[in-house]
Amino acid sequence: MALKKIPRSPLAPQSFATLAPINGLGLHVYATGSRYRQRDDLLVVTLPEKTKIAGVFTKSSMPSAAVDLCKAHLKESKGRARAIIVNAGIANAFTGKQGQASAETVSAACASLLGIDACNVYMASTGVIGQDLDPSPLVSAMLTGFDERENIQNWMSAAQAICTTDTFPKVATGTAKFGKHRVHINVIAKGSGMIAPDMATMLAFGFTDAALPAGLLQKLIRDVNGESFNSVTVDGDTSTSDTFLFCATGEKALGGAPLRSVNDPRLGNFKKELKRVVQDVAIQIACDGEGATKLMTIDIKGAQNDIAARKIALAIGNSPLVKTAIAGEDANWGRIVMAIGKSGERADRDKLGIKIGGHLVARKGRAIEGYDETLVAEHMQTPHISIEADVGVGKGRARVWACDLTHGYISINADYRS
Amino acid sequence: MALKKIPRSPLAPQSFATLAPINGLGLHVYATGSRYRQRDDLLVVTLPEKTKIAGVFTKSSMPSAAVDLCKAHLKESKGRARAIIVNAGIANAFTGKQGQASAETVSAACASLLGIDACNVYMASTGVIGQDLDPSPLVSAMLTGFDERENIQNWMSAAQAICTTDTFPKVATGTAKFGKHRVHINVIAKGSGMIAPDMATMLAFGFTDAALPAGLLQKLIRDVNGESFNSVTVDGDTSTSDTFLFCATGEKALGGAPLRSVNDPRLGNFKKELKRVVQDVAIQIACDGEGATKLMTIDIKGAQNDIAARKIALAIGNSPLVKTAIAGEDANWGRIVMAIGKSGERADRDKLGIKIGGHLVARKGRAIEGYDETLVAEHMQTPHISIEADVGVGKGRARVWACDLTHGYISINADYRS
Repeated sequence: MALKKIPRSPLAPQSFATLAPINGLGLHVYATGSRYRQRDDLLVVTLPEKTKIAGVFTKSSMPSAAVDLCKAHLKESKGRARAIIVNAGIANAFTGKQGQASAETVSAACASLLGIDACNVYMASTGVIGQDLDPSPLVSAMLTGFDERENIQNWMSAAQAICTTDTFPKVATGTAKFGKHRVHINVIAKGSGMIAPDMATMLAFGFTDAALPAGLLQKLIRDVNGESFNSVTVDGDTSTSDTFLFCATGEKALGGAPLRSVNDPRLGNFKKELKRVVQDVAIQIACDGEGATKLMTIDIKGAQNDIAARKIALAIGNSPLVKTAIAGEDANWGRIVMAIGKSGERADRDKLGIKIGGHLVARKGRAIEGYDETLVAEHMQTPHISIEADVGVGKGRARVWACDLTHGYISINADYRS
Repeated sequence: MALKKIPRSPLAPQSFATLAPINGLGLHVYATGSRYRQRDDLLVVTLPEKTKIAGVFTKSSMPSAAVDLCKAHLKESKGRARAIIVNAGIANAFTGKQGQASAETVSAACASLLGIDACNVYMASTGVIGQDLDPSPLVSAMLTGFDERENIQNWMSAAQAICTTDTFPKVATGTAKFGKHRVHINVIAKGSGMIAPDMATMLAFGFTDAALPAGLLQKLIRDVNGESFNSVTVDGDTSTSDTFLFCATGEKALGGAPLRSVNDPRLGNFKKELKRVVQDVAIQIACDGEGATKLMTIDIKGAQNDIAARKIALAIGNSPLVKTAIAGEDANWGRIVMAIGKSGERADRDKLGIKIGGHLVARKGRAIEGYDETLVAEHMQTPHISIEADVGVGKGRARVWACDLTHGYISINADYRS
């Protein structure tokens, strides 16, 4: 199956953020030739000694060998990390015992080359499902060494090396107050098709120089994941490989009493900035949805609770009929009504109100008489579409990002084996 | 928004069944000009006096005015019916009190013209959501009379009058042994996009000359619905208007003790034939999926139970990545693994086996070494694709029908307001 050159998404950012260096961290990229030609397809992130790690993974019952390995190593190492290996092109999913052995071989080779414990090495793989991952080209690449490029920290080339059908690399960065320090938060990610919650099907790797205990880091990541990667959908399909790992190198400590709770007020600014940065990357994934030409921001209020609100928002974001209407710049809000109706969550038809681009188009269960269709039509022609609905039964709220469904999606997926 | 002429589905039947007349039943079609020009868009079925009726409806929380009316009349009439009105082009959904009044006006006018109770009239509407249904053209059409065309029973023109984006009318017929009689079972349906269970989004109207009590008829219809319309998916979207009504005119009685249970052995042949006829129509709906070029038959076994098996089969049938792979004639079974994994139902990755076109491609959690890809590739080029999976955890089984996702779907839905 030929690999096609896919044009860059029209929703790609105009410019990319410059990510600050994080002390002691190394970004190493290699072109292994495993599946792609003439491009980097392997990233190894080396991490300083005190690094703590947390992770959330796909809920698929068919997890990849790399997901299994990460979960085992997280437990065994009690949340320590010294390296993350990411390969692009082959997912090493549904490859049985042989796949497990491949992942172990690659991570063990990395551990041995770096002189660290094998359980401190993590791995993530995306690409074709069901194809064996030959460990040799990856191990050979790592044998060429880690040293020479260490500390250069070219985050863009790292983000590029992990891409598959992505049309642009995803990076985001922020700075947060952390006690007497200012700490960095850097996130890189990949993801384009097969994106849906639980969790948005993608790989994401975050790094901060703050010192955070592993247990607390895990809670922080789980929370932020809900409002970011789990609130993004491209096609409703969930991959076997979804992985979001977050590392705290521990260089900058808070001082004072040890951090125990995510509700510790000293974490306030860090949490806010973490959410902003992770949402930034998550939205970039929706913007790089296969064939996407429009980003939809869907806000639901009045649901029974926040979880119900998210489910309703996702029903809209995943509906092929809503997505094609958006692609066609048709303010067909009847399809939004349909999607709310099929969500399985409570909604009061006769109280339902809908806004498109901030303009009320329906209220109390029917269209607004003579609303100004030209204003809505103008909004539909912009790249960022806003959909709001009040479903009239409670106080639950949620925001979800999604993209439209176009001929581009069909072209990419009907002749690309991914 | 222009109405486009959509070419007939390549999966349309080569020829259509001839439906036997059912005594006392009248099929009346009209061109009201409500939304379409120069085509029939209104069907009124008149029914003899003893007719019993049963119905199943959309589970959407945003049901159309016609769905509300049918449910109320079913209750009020205790399962009696004298007429069914079906209009195409305007769904009369999300139209508030005005929509309810329109439906009531049309059904009351019909009742008055026929001299029957209003609660014995049923209605079904499909088309644009959110647009008011003007009752006048429908009432005017009915005023032109029912008599002259009565008993001609042109089932094809009836099936055509209820179509919206359908590219062919859907009809099926059968004959069953019923005591000392042979009885007819005729079903007509419409549905093309916005098709998904709960329940397959469509309208279907079935008729038999057998005598069946209303309560029993309701149970029979509920059961057959699960294995037919609720096992078909086009795009995973569920409409606000789904309606399956089934009428028993009561001409031919079983004799003997009254029928009380669906498990009465005297019903055996009737149930079998009913299922065959209704499945026939349901599969025609999948074959007319918007833009469809391939019909997928998905068989799941080894699930925890039959309900879990159906959910897994639907996860495959609704997956945009599976559907585009089928469109591209790519035996990308990795996407089938992905879809099983995301279904939320139990499946054992390391026992999972998959067949495509009857050829085993994966077993015990990995690809079969050196399976004959040419045989599978040949199967992928045919219009009827068979996917089988054994998920290795129990004895649950299900069969689901779905279609592929093509450029045609995008073309139809990105510029057709439905």
